[in-house]
Amino acid sequence: MDKKLLIVGVSAYDAIQSPFGKVDRILGGSGVYSALAASYFQQQTGLVSIVGDDFEATDLELLKNHQINLEGMDQVPGAKTFFWSGEYHNDLNTRTTLDTQLNVLTQFEPKVPESYRDADIVFLANLHPALQCQTLDQMHKRPDLVIMDTMNFWIDNSWDELMVALKRVDVLSINDEEARQITGEYSLVEAARKIQALGPKYVIIKKGEHGALLFQGEHVFAAPALPLKEVLDPTGAGDSFAGGFAGYLAAQKSIGFEQLKTAIIYGSALASFTVEAFGPERLLNIKPEELSSRLQTFRQLTQFDITLHPEANATTT
Amino acid sequence: MDKKLLIVGVSAYDAIQSPFGKVDRILGGSGVYSALAASYFQQQTGLVSIVGDDFEATDLELLKNHQINLEGMDQVPGAKTFFWSGEYHNDLNTRTTLDTQLNVLTQFEPKVPESYRDADIVFLANLHPALQCQTLDQMHKRPDLVIMDTMNFWIDNSWDELMVALKRVDVLSINDEEARQITGEYSLVEAARKIQALGPKYVIIKKGEHGALLFQGEHVFAAPALPLKEVLDPTGAGDSFAGGFAGYLAAQKSIGFEQLKTAIIYGSALASFTVEAFGPERLLNIKPEELSSRLQTFRQLTQFDITLHPEANATTT
Repeated sequence: MDKKLLIVGVSAYDAIQSPFGKVDRILGGSGVYSALAASYFQQQTGLVSIVGDDFEATDLELLKNHQINLEGMDQVPGAKTFFWSGEYHNDLNTRTTLDTQLNVLTQFEPKVPESYRDADIVFLANLHPALQCQTLDQMHKRPDLVIMDTMNFWIDNSWDELMVALKRVDVLSINDEEARQITGEYSLVEAARKIQALGPKYVIIKKGEHGALLFQGEHVFAAPALPLKEVLDPTGAGDSFAGGFAGYLAAQKSIGFEQLKTAIIYGSALASFTVEAFGPERLLNIKPEELSSRLQTFRQLTQFDITLHPEANATTT
Repeated sequence: MDKKLLIVGVSAYDAIQSPFGKVDRILGGSGVYSALAASYFQQQTGLVSIVGDDFEATDLELLKNHQINLEGMDQVPGAKTFFWSGEYHNDLNTRTTLDTQLNVLTQFEPKVPESYRDADIVFLANLHPALQCQTLDQMHKRPDLVIMDTMNFWIDNSWDELMVALKRVDVLSINDEEARQITGEYSLVEAARKIQALGPKYVIIKKGEHGALLFQGEHVFAAPALPLKEVLDPTGAGDSFAGGFAGYLAAQKSIGFEQLKTAIIYGSALASFTVEAFGPERLLNIKPEELSSRLQTFRQLTQFDITLHPEANATTT
């Protein structure tokens, strides 16, 4: 039986430029991307988010069509949906924010609907850490797994609240620069160790086109990103990754390091679809056989046989 | 029976600063690092290189102790060995060259000793592409495998000679920025495809701390770099990688995509030792059981089980 997955995150409209094109206003936001990605694995995803009355009915419909529960989606009359505009550089790992209009997001106080207060897994997408804590406060029981994302802005401006939130989290999913920023450690191994000491048992460090690392104690797992012919738009890749990761785990009986490894591969597979088109377009239409085939590609990409080797003979043979 | 491996490359003294320390004058150079790395796999490595009379007898001894054939090592009286000085930044992937003294390297004309003109595998470390071709001209037969490294300087200044050299090469081993520079393609998949059209059947793209990619036609393999607690000095990592790669292949009966995959893991393992100390210090003293244990670490790092997964159910279950 699927576990219940609660996702709290942003719904947005994005304007995106990349070396490969541009779009003026496309559905986006961490909550939207992650909930869509999670929907490929199970049927009980609830999204808590906020939008203005400019949020298109067709976009709500689209989320519902992916079996996403929208009882926690607050649509505020007279307000506008969060808007972000950014430009990706030739190196698609870096981007410049051109415009951020917080709009309705300034009023966001996550309200978890009664039907999801017993969720087994919670994914707290990137938000003010105090809001992430408010979400957890509303749960009837301690969820089996709390996964959290954050960003440099909160590290810079809300350190104390971030530290409080981290104590309540099982999995922290952040990028390499953020991991270094939180810990002051350049080495990602050291950074992961220090983050674990702050609360999270598991640390996922995302490295964009270079894949992701998973740490737990002395255990490390490295997942490559798929080398893609064309990355049109990286927006939402990290959230698709996290949503796929959480969604996969929600479909598992038990959760441990082995399941998290596989979840990272599933998350990476979902992210690899997202970047193939602008916005969530590709993420909206992945056929089961396409996902299956992509997972096989990941296997081929990483599998090797060290039994082929001769014994290392140093200077002794 | 081991194959014969010929390596043509630079011998140097390096002065290195990293966030973790500094050394004023330490043995280095692409030829030295790669030959040392190769020596862990077989007993027939010949090094063609050039040094001045300031090159220490103890350094020659050290190479000989690793069973490296030095008939092709030209020691020029009255000349000084190539000297390089550089500083690594906090991000150990980038460095600033502080000083380059070409010295005896300006006179370098590789002379392959008779005993290595029938080598089965040739590794042409980073050098002027005309010198790389001169080396191949001296071979009695077309080697089974020619592996070549190059750098941005030759791409900028010796394009035509580089194109000629590429036509004679089976494996090109370069870093990501160089691959992009040669092809004008941001996507590494596209870059690898275009490089293959220039000659090399196999393309290895090195991504520093993010590992390496191997391409052949539609085949791709991604090897992670080992997440290390401490990287003291990345100098020689790429050359240790290439030398370990070539040395491993020299110990194999046959050579194809599967063997190249494994060779990349061996090369990565050797490189992971090199960066643990300044200069070649750690590379000089790797015990067979240490190498074996490091290879197991690579296996654990990358292995996952996608049979754990439920069928992707999209919105149909």
